[in-house]
Amino acid sequence: METVNIDRLMQDIEELSQIGRHASGRISRPSFSPEDREARFWLSQKITEAGLALHIDEAGNIFGRLSGQGPAVISGSHLDTIPNGGKFDGALGVLTALECCRVIKEKQLQIQSPLEVVAFSDEEDHYLGFLGSYAFTGKLDMKAARLACNPEGLTLAEAMAQCGLDIEKVAEARRHPEEIKAFIELHIEQGPILDTAKMSIGVVHTAMGNYRYGIKMTGLANHAGFPMQGRQDSCLGAVHLIETIRNYQDQLKPETHLTVGIFKVLPGLENVIPGETYFSVDFREEGLGVLQNLESYVAKSVKEIASQYGLRAQIDPLLKVDPLPFYPEILETIQHVSDELGIKWQPIASGAGHDAQIVGQVAPTAMIFVPSAGGRSHCPEEYTRPEDIEKGANVLLHTLLRLAQ
Amino acid sequence: METVNIDRLMQDIEELSQIGRHASGRISRPSFSPEDREARFWLSQKITEAGLALHIDEAGNIFGRLSGQGPAVISGSHLDTIPNGGKFDGALGVLTALECCRVIKEKQLQIQSPLEVVAFSDEEDHYLGFLGSYAFTGKLDMKAARLACNPEGLTLAEAMAQCGLDIEKVAEARRHPEEIKAFIELHIEQGPILDTAKMSIGVVHTAMGNYRYGIKMTGLANHAGFPMQGRQDSCLGAVHLIETIRNYQDQLKPETHLTVGIFKVLPGLENVIPGETYFSVDFREEGLGVLQNLESYVAKSVKEIASQYGLRAQIDPLLKVDPLPFYPEILETIQHVSDELGIKWQPIASGAGHDAQIVGQVAPTAMIFVPSAGGRSHCPEEYTRPEDIEKGANVLLHTLLRLAQ
Repeated sequence: METVNIDRLMQDIEELSQIGRHASGRISRPSFSPEDREARFWLSQKITEAGLALHIDEAGNIFGRLSGQGPAVISGSHLDTIPNGGKFDGALGVLTALECCRVIKEKQLQIQSPLEVVAFSDEEDHYLGFLGSYAFTGKLDMKAARLACNPEGLTLAEAMAQCGLDIEKVAEARRHPEEIKAFIELHIEQGPILDTAKMSIGVVHTAMGNYRYGIKMTGLANHAGFPMQGRQDSCLGAVHLIETIRNYQDQLKPETHLTVGIFKVLPGLENVIPGETYFSVDFREEGLGVLQNLESYVAKSVKEIASQYGLRAQIDPLLKVDPLPFYPEILETIQHVSDELGIKWQPIASGAGHDAQIVGQVAPTAMIFVPSAGGRSHCPEEYTRPEDIEKGANVLLHTLLRLAQ
Repeated sequence: METVNIDRLMQDIEELSQIGRHASGRISRPSFSPEDREARFWLSQKITEAGLALHIDEAGNIFGRLSGQGPAVISGSHLDTIPNGGKFDGALGVLTALECCRVIKEKQLQIQSPLEVVAFSDEEDHYLGFLGSYAFTGKLDMKAARLACNPEGLTLAEAMAQCGLDIEKVAEARRHPEEIKAFIELHIEQGPILDTAKMSIGVVHTAMGNYRYGIKMTGLANHAGFPMQGRQDSCLGAVHLIETIRNYQDQLKPETHLTVGIFKVLPGLENVIPGETYFSVDFREEGLGVLQNLESYVAKSVKEIASQYGLRAQIDPLLKVDPLPFYPEILETIQHVSDELGIKWQPIASGAGHDAQIVGQVAPTAMIFVPSAGGRSHCPEEYTRPEDIEKGANVLLHTLLRLAQ
């Protein structure tokens, strides 16, 4: 059976990882930054060198296409990284898809459907999160896009303009769902399950839903010598609220993922009761009903605890992505191909957000996971063994060949 | 009976409050800053104008003295403020003592002992906290003083040098305890008890002890899609620890004051499990045994919860001030004087830290509280009614006259 050229693929991974790399090994390619622009240029050249037709749409999504008839089979991920990230998240999905297209092109392997590699814009929420896949599927909230800015205050419109893109034309990036036969994203697991099980392939049956809130509790700043009874302590109120949510979530089996990634108090002095506390709550879960229950529970608890502590409270919904079961026929194809190649696989759910979750809302979609050593991701320690990358890329290659028949 | 000149006193409060005042009304006179230096110059002039003998010691403590025989009766507080503070904390104790000395001087009221007004340096922990009173009582930790720096990184030694002071000579500021007959500090309550009870005078029988810790919990930063089971989540560990301490403290009657004034997570992103969490815990309490119990409980809980959450934990003791009962004979004098003046008083404990707690470790000491409207302090909303200031100043005047006999 045909296989990818693993040396060429590893070389690509190494080259791309040099872009935005600090001396410490951390990689920062926030979307539309100079580093991201350099990566975009690099990928465009690779696509052209491979003899694929280069196309960049109005959202900055980059495509490399092998022509064919009817709707396209598409595979890819994203090039942008979080600040101080690693070299596999996103990049691996783009580069394995590129390698598959290259092998199919150079070996003139038989396909009927058009085949495309894609790198979606701004997946990592530097401005909006999933900008590219939202635009591609026609699901972009233009109001949110016009308001979006990065942590330094640069608007998305300004950042896109620096890349020669006009935010007002981004709706034109939409691809009609009927033109998409299938979308497959290969990605690192970002968890320890495959690594622990020494399994090379995870067949991702479901993308967990992801509900996220920003909660602000406002009390009254006061001296730490102030009696307990009259306090309006936003910090102890927030702590009690998080513990309450945690206790509720703890009863759920299997546990919903719960992350409090931001927690800030003002004024933030040892001897002053915080007048304001802000924190984020992120839930990830396969079951829609559980997420909806959690949403009600959080709303109820915030109200009760704010009243108990004499606080005002505000809940901002930051993200509301429902769970998405991936497309059964594609999953079967991935499993079948893995079996044929003699590669061990297991079913798995994805806890992280991926472009596939967005595309999967309009077209047949699935994901392939490869292991993350120690489950690490979003950090310079991200690592996937070349053997696992090769196995993942070969499974992707033969899955794409089947789907493109 | 003789009384203070309330108009002159209010005028002083107003003048001093202009120094370091922002357009917003917030007052910032961090110790040894240009604003603090301006306030020092202003007070020195006032002392000289009043015909008192000006003395500035090696710690920058400013004294105005009426001569007499034997050990001195001393009264005062501090001129420095926290950033964005109000006009009464510290200032009121210095200015009422100044006004008392002025009245005694101009009306030639009878005193035997020397009488002094004092403004102690760096009470508000901009560098060290209680620098002036520690030096005055010979209790300054020179090692800590040499290491101290402000939040901008300026060392105490550099800041003192800008004020013409040599940190290496600061030990010479020590006054022998036998030269101190009594110390009295008048201060705003910084709590709502007197204001709620519509009481003009609080006779402070005890300065609560104040134990303070900085606790750092270190886990592993990871993507929010990482399974719950393998996480080393420093934030949820810290939240559980604070809630555990809170539940313990909640059982204590009367409740110990508990403040978590700082809470920081790293990296501080919505979709990343915090790898590091740092928070401060501040306990204030009248009973030494209770504080010691809390100290053991915190140490035990940190260990248990760190182990439960797979974290490393570090506890830094930041402050350890034991409770101090004030001097009974001075308290009786304050009560007696208040009764004679027909001014209502009540006994009260102090939850905030004051120079009186330091001086009280070596010499007979007490405090007089006046009400804080709504209990507010350390903020621009600090307010004490002129009627209460007048009553407080008159109680101080006659207490000093008695003690100086």
